[in-house]
Amino acid sequence: MKIYYEDYAVDKNIDIAVKYMMTKEEIVEMGLRWDPQPFHVDEDAANKSMFGGLVASSAHIFPIFVWLGQQSDRDVAALSALGFDKLRLHAPLRSGDELSYSYYCAEKRLSQSKPHCGIVRCVCEMKNQRGEIVFTAEVASLIATRDNPLFCE
Amino acid sequence: MKIYYEDYAVDKNIDIAVKYMMTKEEIVEMGLRWDPQPFHVDEDAANKSMFGGLVASSAHIFPIFVWLGQQSDRDVAALSALGFDKLRLHAPLRSGDELSYSYYCAEKRLSQSKPHCGIVRCVCEMKNQRGEIVFTAEVASLIATRDNPLFCE
Repeated sequence: MKIYYEDYAVDKNIDIAVKYMMTKEEIVEMGLRWDPQPFHVDEDAANKSMFGGLVASSAHIFPIFVWLGQQSDRDVAALSALGFDKLRLHAPLRSGDELSYSYYCAEKRLSQSKPHCGIVRCVCEMKNQRGEIVFTAEVASLIATRDNPLFCE
Repeated sequence: MKIYYEDYAVDKNIDIAVKYMMTKEEIVEMGLRWDPQPFHVDEDAANKSMFGGLVASSAHIFPIFVWLGQQSDRDVAALSALGFDKLRLHAPLRSGDELSYSYYCAEKRLSQSKPHCGIVRCVCEMKNQRGEIVFTAEVASLIATRDNPLFCE
């Protein structure tokens, strides 16, 4: 079953049940590919850095954020991400950390330029297993309404 | 040679010489891993979508943005990304597109809480080979000053 624009309830908090487990191997792999700073890819250098150990890159945290946001029991009838605001890295993400994701819809309105579409702005956060906030962001998305011909099945 | 906080000149535009070539294989690979929406992973479904073809996910564009931003001829003495604002997806990123990256420092100040550190806010954009803006964002980073003991070599 799909979540359409009409299904978003403003200010209702949603917890995603799926968690994301971080490993040293993944921190280094994504660091080497996208952001080879010493504190993402070199354990000895990371130990001497401001972080005191390996930490995940923003180039790694952001894709996890996109992925976890989709691990609902229902699919969103998403047409496009429009923009992201206020991305903040609050606490380091380290090997062994388990991320959870929650969000609420702060605002919704029908699109004025695109028929059968609405714009939804969600405020999202990821926390680690100790309840510390690791990452927050706001996401604006274009979501189909129930009568959108692209989603008639 | 490293770029320290002192080396940032406000409002001076910097073009990164390195380009990023997008392929269908990479769009699908990153889509399957982080954002398996039909328009990122399934060519037939993508052709029928609003985009009329495969397009790269934001979960793919963001790491490219982090990577390209580091392809300068000089290393930045970066200590941490602090936050990202106003991320906007202006035009779809498709197979065959070649991304270029430019930025300017809009603001800089010494950190009040961390000695030997400054905060630099840069306004960044990526364009395709036709000069169309694909992605823009603002990045705030913590950058070492020349006397930072972490960077004494």
